[in-house]
Parts: sequence; C-alpha cells; structure tokens
Amino acid sequence: MKFKCSDRMEPLKPSTIREMLKYISDPTVISLAGGNPSADLFPAKELLDVTADVLKNEAALALQYGITEGYPPLVKQIRERLKSKYGIDTPGDEILITHGGQQVIDLATKCLVNEGDTVITENPSFIGALNTFRSFRANLVGVPMDNDGMDVDYLENVLKTEKNVKLIYTIPTFQNPMGVTMTPERRKRLYELAVKYDVPVVEDSPYFELTYSGEITLPIKSLDKTGHVIYAGSFSKVISPGLRLGYAVGPAELIAKMTVAKQGEDVCNNQLTMVTVSRYLERYDLDEHIGHCCAAYSKKRDYMLECIDKYFDKRVTHTRPGGGIFIWCDLPEGYSGTDLWRFALEHKVACVPGSTFDVKLDPKNRGFRLNFSLPSFEEIEKGCRIMGECIREFLK
Amino acid sequence: MKFKCSDRMEPLKPSTIREMLKYISDPTVISLAGGNPSADLFPAKELLDVTADVLKNEAALALQYGITEGYPPLVKQIRERLKSKYGIDTPGDEILITHGGQQVIDLATKCLVNEGDTVITENPSFIGALNTFRSFRANLVGVPMDNDGMDVDYLENVLKTEKNVKLIYTIPTFQNPMGVTMTPERRKRLYELAVKYDVPVVEDSPYFELTYSGEITLPIKSLDKTGHVIYAGSFSKVISPGLRLGYAVGPAELIAKMTVAKQGEDVCNNQLTMVTVSRYLERYDLDEHIGHCCAAYSKKRDYMLECIDKYFDKRVTHTRPGGGIFIWCDLPEGYSGTDLWRFALEHKVACVPGSTFDVKLDPKNRGFRLNFSLPSFEEIEKGCRIMGECIREFLK
Repeated sequence: MKFKCSDRMEPLKPSTIREMLKYISDPTVISLAGGNPSADLFPAKELLDVTADVLKNEAALALQYGITEGYPPLVKQIRERLKSKYGIDTPGDEILITHGGQQVIDLATKCLVNEGDTVITENPSFIGALNTFRSFRANLVGVPMDNDGMDVDYLENVLKTEKNVKLIYTIPTFQNPMGVTMTPERRKRLYELAVKYDVPVVEDSPYFELTYSGEITLPIKSLDKTGHVIYAGSFSKVISPGLRLGYAVGPAELIAKMTVAKQGEDVCNNQLTMVTVSRYLERYDLDEHIGHCCAAYSKKRDYMLECIDKYFDKRVTHTRPGGGIFIWCDLPEGYSGTDLWRFALEHKVACVPGSTFDVKLDPKNRGFRLNFSLPSFEEIEKGCRIMGECIREFLK
Repeated sequence: MKFKCSDRMEPLKPSTIREMLKYISDPTVISLAGGNPSADLFPAKELLDVTADVLKNEAALALQYGITEGYPPLVKQIRERLKSKYGIDTPGDEILITHGGQQVIDLATKCLVNEGDTVITENPSFIGALNTFRSFRANLVGVPMDNDGMDVDYLENVLKTEKNVKLIYTIPTFQNPMGVTMTPERRKRLYELAVKYDVPVVEDSPYFELTYSGEITLPIKSLDKTGHVIYAGSFSKVISPGLRLGYAVGPAELIAKMTVAKQGEDVCNNQLTMVTVSRYLERYDLDEHIGHCCAAYSKKRDYMLECIDKYFDKRVTHTRPGGGIFIWCDLPEGYSGTDLWRFALEHKVACVPGSTFDVKLDPKNRGFRLNFSLPSFEEIEKGCRIMGECIREFLK
C-alpha cells in the first residue's frame, strides 16, 4: 500500500536532533548535541527505595489505570511546591499531570489553536515545540532574542499587526537553545501584553531550577492573576527524563479541555511513575538533590565557557548562561551554522545547527547550540578544542 | 481570561466512563462500569524483581531519554512474539512503542486523516477511539454489529458510497463494548475490502489473548501482505494498564510519520517502563501469566452470565463473549439504556449506557455494557441482582 499522509503531517520531518542522536551512537563522535541531563545525577537509589515500597504495598493502586488529571497526592505536592517556593497561585487554576513537559505544549495547542491561527514564539526556539505547532498547521511568527530574552517591543508590534494570534510560547529561563534568561522587567511587560491583547501564554519552564548563581528568576506564572499563563513544568531535568513526568498549571476550564484531549491521546499517565515520584517527594528532599545537580552542572558550564574562550575564534560570539544546560554560539555574518555543523561532524564532533531552532528553518542561521550537561569534562575539552579547530579552518 | 476553545475540541465532552469512574469512588456503589483488569492479577512481585535489577544495574539507561521508536530490545521481543505466536509478519513493517494502545489510534489518525475525512468504525465502538476521531474532526460512519462482529456487507456498501474514507477502525476480538468476535471469514473479507478500496485499517487488539476457550482467533494483521493493516497492541490487559505500554505495527513509511507525530506529543515513552518490561519478558513466561488471568477471568465471566440469566428479564438480550472483559445487553425496543443507567445508579449499581459507545451518541440506544474483570464474585452477584430488579421495575 502506498499510504497518503494527512496534510498536517506531510511537511514534518523527523527532529534533526533526535535523528542525530540515533546516529551519534558512533562512539568516536564527541557529542555536544544532546539535551539530556547527566546520568550520574539520577537519584536511582532513592527511586529504587520508593519503587520497591510502592510495588510491595501499593501495587493495586500503582499498576491500575489512574484518573486522567493525575495521581491526586502528586497534584497536591506540585501545587504546594509551586506556591510556597515560586509564588505560583493563580485563582481558579488547576493542574494536569502530563507525559513530560512536551505534552503540555501539545495539549494546549490542540485546545487553543485552529489551523492557520498564529502562534508567536521566540526565535530561535525549542524544535520540539515548533514541530508541535507545525503539526497543528499554525502560522509561526518568531520574535528575536537578545541576552535579556524575547524582544518585547517586537512582540507588541506582532500582537498589534498579526490576526488570530492564539498563543505566545516562551521559555523564559535558561532558554533552549540560547541559554539566556528573560529579565523580570520583560516578564512583567510580556504578561501585561498578554492581558492587553487577551492572548494566552505557554510558559515552558523545564530548566529554571537549575540555577548556578543560587538566584531564581520567578516564573511569569507567578505574576498571573487573570489566568492568561499556562505553565508547563517538568521533572525531566531535575529527577529523570526517562520517567516522562510533566504538568500543566492553568485556568480550570482550559485544563478540563486539555484533560479531554489527553484522554484521546493516551488515557492517563503512567500511574506507577506518578505514585513513585509522589513517594519520592515525601521521603526525600528534592531541593537538596537539585542542589547537587546545580553544583555538578555549574562546574561543567564554567569549564565549557573556559574552553570556548580558549579555543574558539574571537569572532564567534556566545551566551553565558546563568543555568540550564545549553550555550549558544553565533558565527560572524555570512557564515552558516549548518555548514559548520556538517564540517564538525566530519571531524567527529556534534553540535546542533541553529537552523534547527529557526522558526523559518533558515539554513543561513549563523548559530549553533552546545550542551554541557551530558559530556564529561574530558569530552568538553576535546570537543571544544576540535570545534575550535574546525571554526578556524571554516572561517578561513 | 475567558478562553476560546479551538474548533476541534469545542464539541468534545469528558468521556462519560472516565468521568463516571471519578464519581464511583462512592464505596456504596457497585461498579460494573469499569474497563480495568483485576488488580489481583498484576505481576507485582515479578515487576519488582526486574525493576530492582534495572535500577541497580541499568539506571543510566533506564532513567535517560530513549529513542522515540522505543527501546530496541523490547521492539525485537514484541516483533518475535507476534511473528511466532500469531503469524504477524508483513513485509516492510516496523514497530513503534506507544504510551498505551490509545496512542496508536491517536497517532494513526493524526497521520492519515484530514478534517472532514471519513473514518468507518463498528457501531457501537470504543468511546476513547471515537473521541480521538472526533478530535480530528473526522466524519464518523458506523457499521452495525452482530454476534459475528462487523457487518462486512454493510461495510462494503459504505466503502462504495462514502467519499474520502481514510480509515477503517475495528476491534475484532472480544470487542469493546460488545464482547463479540469477528469470524475468520469476515476478517478475510474485511482485509480484501481494505485492499480493494485501498483504505488502511486500524486493528485494535487489547483483549485477544484473554481467550477463555483456549482458542485464539488470529488477528486480521496476520493476513496482511500489503501493509494495509496498522495493528494496535497493548500490555494493559495482560500485564498492567498503569504502565501505559502499547505498540503499533505497520508499514515503515507510516510508522516513520507516526514517530515524528509522537516526538511532537511526548518525545518518547517512559524508558524505565520499557526496559523493565523487556527484562520481565526475558525472565518470566508471559503466556503462563496470561493463562492465570484467563483462568480467573473465565470464572468471573461464567458467573456473570449465570447471574444475568438468573436475574435479568428474558426480554433483555445479551452477548456471550468467548473472552475479554465485557458483556453487552440490549433492552427491548423502545427502552433507552441511558434511562436504565440513570435509574440503576440511583439504586447504587453502575453500568455504562450504550449511547456512550454510539457513533451518533443516540440517547435512545437500547444497550448497556457490563464489566466482569474488576468486580468481585460477590459484587457481580449483588450488582446483577440489583440491576435485574431495576430492569424489572424499568420495563413495567
């Protein structure tokens, strides 16, 4: 059978990154391309402790279907953590537990965006989100970024001129792919614009607790008194991505619709995972664990910045992230990150070309993304050194 | 903020069943409404054994992101099991592991069906699938059922007259909600029609191994030489639904598109679950476990049939399923299953009204669905007795 693809999926190609990950299994390639946390930091022993207890004493609960909204005690724990630590407490909000943060983006788009409607995103932005918007045939409009995050003046201009804007998507803290953080002033302005133009915001926040200065920039959601912000949270970067555990916080009416949408996608979350993580949060101190992660990652960030400064041509600019797992570099005018990426791969170092994150997939995008959470110190040094040699050769 | 729902989600209401499950937490209500396996039968001890080993020895693998296609050794195990036991071995096919069987339906629809295209389903059919089709704004056409499954002459007539048919959806074995099984002759005919009219089939098969006669009716997929059948398999009813583990078997090109669609929905499956179940299948005999389940469920089926025959008015007809977990009853002409459902709920017994599974949601649907896997023998007796009294009163 020659199968005929639906119009919505026809233009979509496999995510470059995830496809690359499959080919980077070549052990001689040094990968600075991933978006994974470091496996050394998974709380495996603690998860085993709680999983053993759950399967011994609560198997009938943990192996059965759960309700689509998520395991209620875990919902309560998430709500209390977000409220007490980060001031997230919008009146009338509810929580839906999802199969990773990605599913929040998917469900919110499904419930808010018709084909042809406009979604505003940072440019560059997370490829996984961009592809979700594309699969709903949204009209994507990118807003430029600088070291303070999304350009909010530009955003207002788009809101003034574009029709049928149904969503603003932002990763305000330690953004993927750039690593930059939106300032508190811009957060306030973005929220005011969302209210003024009555457009919902999806605030994607998988990295914000991985802060290496010790200071947390409060989520946009903490400003939300009107229910304009849908917060996408995740345990992937602070506990384990393999567990696929995320959550949406948003207005009750929207969360109810997203719950119906989730029923149609996968019925409910992995109940064993939800019960296990709930017991983990009861028994262990997640903040202490995050502290360990931050201590380990901040050293890697420092080392990668050092190596970049040492090995990269000075015409290459780069961000200096206060947290998260990514650094973004820009080649000088006229050079393409995609061409450099190919060249570096031939020399056995993998990064991700900026075009991947470009709203228009522009192959001339000058950027490339480096990850420092997954490689070892040795791999960071060697990877940056070879990348530096490639850049020198490439800029000749 | 007053949020504006997308057109696709606007008409969708929460699944009656899943909503009911939330309210059936009232311990005085006897529920014959569920679709859950019996928690006594979960292989909790065995899952604990393998999970402990995985978290001790393979945590870096099991807690990390996996590839979207699924954990390769598990893919291989599924492929070999389906081939050796059930003759599923279509040339050019691939497998995608999904977050439960529901996600196969969702992803296949996403990749094959445009808004307004026609999806043909059995009528009545699984509410979760119907709502997925509705969320993609498909035009649903129902084909009547009898004790031998879908009426394939009627199906051909629909294929001849309907335009833009993009999918035929069937649950051929121990169908949800009716419990009936499509005969081998009809399976062959359905496959031939799919080839003749070049329309893909989604064969949803979560129950077929729960056979109480010991005889397996081979899946339609085992006839497939042309790649017209997308097989939706699931471990929910034979290991645990809380683990949310299903899989799609279909032509490589379509599976590749479904993989891209899954990337946009949830990146990849729960890796810990995939690795754990793979180790479980290595170490334990799934067929032996399924044998235990069948022995337990067949007794419950027999007992429920006995109670129905004893307590229900003879004007109520019902199916006699050879396996699975559901029995379907029909009230005499002129009586609505929805009205009976409400009446029985007042008397503290829950079933599911047939209108829930009706393609047109017809409140006059005469059917209602009973589940025998979840209630105890005592609950089956008491539930059927009260239901019988309600029916007698209701038919007066």
